[in-house]
Amino acid sequence: MKALRLDHIGVAVQSLESVLPVWRDLLGLPVEEIEEVPEVKVRVAKLSTGNTTIELVEPLPGEEATRRFLDKRGEGIHHICLEVADLAAATAELVARGMKPVLATPRAGAGGRLVNFLSPKDAHGVLIELSQRVAAAGT
Amino acid sequence: MKALRLDHIGVAVQSLESVLPVWRDLLGLPVEEIEEVPEVKVRVAKLSTGNTTIELVEPLPGEEATRRFLDKRGEGIHHICLEVADLAAATAELVARGMKPVLATPRAGAGGRLVNFLSPKDAHGVLIELSQRVAAAGT
Repeated sequence: MKALRLDHIGVAVQSLESVLPVWRDLLGLPVEEIEEVPEVKVRVAKLSTGNTTIELVEPLPGEEATRRFLDKRGEGIHHICLEVADLAAATAELVARGMKPVLATPRAGAGGRLVNFLSPKDAHGVLIELSQRVAAAGT
Repeated sequence: MKALRLDHIGVAVQSLESVLPVWRDLLGLPVEEIEEVPEVKVRVAKLSTGNTTIELVEPLPGEEATRRFLDKRGEGIHHICLEVADLAAATAELVARGMKPVLATPRAGAGGRLVNFLSPKDAHGVLIELSQRVAAAGT
């Protein structure tokens, strides 16, 4: 596969309000959007660095993956997301190489994207989200 | 301060050779440079994502900070680096806000840059390198 760009860095936080004084006020990164994503039970603040995006991710009640990360390791960088052109092909390539993508088939993510994940076990400790832009389908 | 761009993401690895099959061969990120940096006792592979850089950092014998991270948490994302225009002013701002930058005064880093670090204690678990480009001084 050929990763096209670094789409974002995901940072796990206990609460957006507690960390915005660092990312927005101290570092001066503009907040582009704060959104609740009920499908995956998180609140996300997207801050622009100019060339990419920092996504601060706060788990809502009932969310499990980010909460487990916070409980185990504390707040910190959770994942990076690389954009690919064809996520189905990328997922097939992972399987062909004997790797275990987190999802058997890509799922719909925020902003009309398809997403899947390369496991930290297959990527030397880094959780890598793979994301494909898809045209809005109006659904 | 005003962070200008995400300069790079630093990933701590046990050996460059063991992780390049993932970052270079699987994800298709071109290696721009592999360099040994004796001043800080690391080997670094720089891979381009198009819009920013992934820096894989392998500690050499005697290096301490990356080695300690590896021993404690294993391989994974170690830090992110944001570029600023004036690192002395940024460092003074950290101090004025009651934070403890890792270095009292910025030090020279690779590629003719000045660097300092915002401690994870002051940034909710994220080690943030701050970097300023400086004109090559011919030394």
